[in-house]
Amino acid sequence: MRGFFIFTLIIELNDMSILTVGTMAFDSIETPYGSVNKVIGGACTYISWAASYWCSEINLVSIIGDDFPEDEIRSLQQRGVSTDGLVRMKGKKSFYWSGKYHNDMNMRDTLVTDLNVLADFNPVLPKSYLHSKYIMLGNLTPSIQLSVLNQLPIKPKLVVLDTMNYWMDTALDELYLVLRKVDVLTINDEEARQLSGERSLLKAAQKIHSFGPRYLIIKKGEHGALLFHNGLMFFAPGLPIAEVIDPTGAGDSFAGGLIGYLARTDDISFNNMKTALIYGSTMASFCVENFSLNKLKNLSQEEIYIRLEQFKDLSSFDENQLGLAN
Amino acid sequence: MRGFFIFTLIIELNDMSILTVGTMAFDSIETPYGSVNKVIGGACTYISWAASYWCSEINLVSIIGDDFPEDEIRSLQQRGVSTDGLVRMKGKKSFYWSGKYHNDMNMRDTLVTDLNVLADFNPVLPKSYLHSKYIMLGNLTPSIQLSVLNQLPIKPKLVVLDTMNYWMDTALDELYLVLRKVDVLTINDEEARQLSGERSLLKAAQKIHSFGPRYLIIKKGEHGALLFHNGLMFFAPGLPIAEVIDPTGAGDSFAGGLIGYLARTDDISFNNMKTALIYGSTMASFCVENFSLNKLKNLSQEEIYIRLEQFKDLSSFDENQLGLAN
Repeated sequence: MRGFFIFTLIIELNDMSILTVGTMAFDSIETPYGSVNKVIGGACTYISWAASYWCSEINLVSIIGDDFPEDEIRSLQQRGVSTDGLVRMKGKKSFYWSGKYHNDMNMRDTLVTDLNVLADFNPVLPKSYLHSKYIMLGNLTPSIQLSVLNQLPIKPKLVVLDTMNYWMDTALDELYLVLRKVDVLTINDEEARQLSGERSLLKAAQKIHSFGPRYLIIKKGEHGALLFHNGLMFFAPGLPIAEVIDPTGAGDSFAGGLIGYLARTDDISFNNMKTALIYGSTMASFCVENFSLNKLKNLSQEEIYIRLEQFKDLSSFDENQLGLAN
Repeated sequence: MRGFFIFTLIIELNDMSILTVGTMAFDSIETPYGSVNKVIGGACTYISWAASYWCSEINLVSIIGDDFPEDEIRSLQQRGVSTDGLVRMKGKKSFYWSGKYHNDMNMRDTLVTDLNVLADFNPVLPKSYLHSKYIMLGNLTPSIQLSVLNQLPIKPKLVVLDTMNYWMDTALDELYLVLRKVDVLTINDEEARQLSGERSLLKAAQKIHSFGPRYLIIKKGEHGALLFHNGLMFFAPGLPIAEVIDPTGAGDSFAGGLIGYLARTDDISFNNMKTALIYGSTMASFCVENFSLNKLKNLSQEEIYIRLEQFKDLSSFDENQLGLAN
């Protein structure tokens, strides 16, 4: 019986490998609650940590300088993250971002962006990564995102891409090229409007489907997230948090929770995608409760379960009362 | 059996009278979809029309000039709205508001506010209104809202109050006085932060509960609405609409749908309040699909039912998948 259990577990693990590509960085952040200097950040870091609660085979692709702490790499490895695809460049510095949040926390100014090693980022996938089934492309130059997809010998089960208005402004043609190969696009509402040229999110979704992604997820920060799929819609609410200390990494934590849950269940139906948004929102809600990955690194199964229940309570109501007209 | 049915129906009607106080106005509106000049508007008008789909005894309190079309009054009366509390001032003009919406429709500029008859508004409740059980105080000077409540000989079952940042800036003391007598407050997120002095909506809700209202509803426009009640929360999503033609009156239509449903079911529990938010959101979603009350006046039971189902689909997901941790 025990042997059988181990056997099925191995099968399951093979099914659910995640490949994630993105930055690993130092962030300096100022929010109304305080400021931190050169803390650990980066899309790939947040994605990997958030996904690691659901998935134990994560293939990380990123680049760092020799200033990035070895401890951080080891703690990722202990979570089941493979760092075979992590390049450490000697004599160079890691990507650095500095930003300041305004009073309402929905707005931020970028103060410094030092590309450093990122300027040389040209990822080559290790052989062991080539059959990953779930691909999470963190926000990066579209040409790098595309080059990663082009290295995969067979079509993966699901490709999720995160991007931002900056790439729409500066690399739209490359973005279109990569979108053709993408199943799920995650952007915010203004970016959806910019990419589609449509004011209505419903119409924007139709247009963006025609670019490639059959799923569009519109991230609305504290207001939640909207999922569009061929005329179907789902709204995952944002959970009001007692103290939003630092929103940095919330979108990446959302993406990590989403792809982690999808890989774990190996089900990419619309129905399961809806639940995946709740898992993503849950991880994002933890992320914002502290600076850097301080909260995200130390979650118990129990507190995740309680938070998921809070999300359920937040949007459930008595449906039997619908259909009462005069 | 039939006699019994009629008897219970009469009881029900007595139970569910709504008293609504607010403006009836002319609006001139410019949106990216076009502009309209001196169309029918006003909080009380939107509230009454939206509530009339659920409740057949609405007691309206408002003031108009002799320029307000008699047809509009008659069509309200035909919906079961009593206009005994409507004052028409001879030789004076109705309240006039003109505004322009920006491209994203979440922002608007007020171009003109002509108080006209509103400057003399000092409502005296007709005797037939005095035992109304559900009170909907539309956005107005807090002192007028208070004077209406003070005329009621017994405490009504539920008092809902809508207000805005303008009254927080100019009449905060009077607003505090009226809030003490209010069960449900509807404001937007920035107003909740201003009124409470708290950045977190969770903390804002706790503070606002201490001012009087045991229910706080935060209206977020296209992002939906949040309900707070003694540490409990509910998020009613915003339904993406193909073409938002004109957001004017959406908040009042929300309030009308909410109080109409509550009066109809005569149940002010947290559980039923959640469903009431869905009804409110449904009426708001119709309101924005056309200028003025053009859409709100001509709804069939079937299209309301379909819309309510869309709201249900928008937020329902497979809860059995929650609680899946590594």
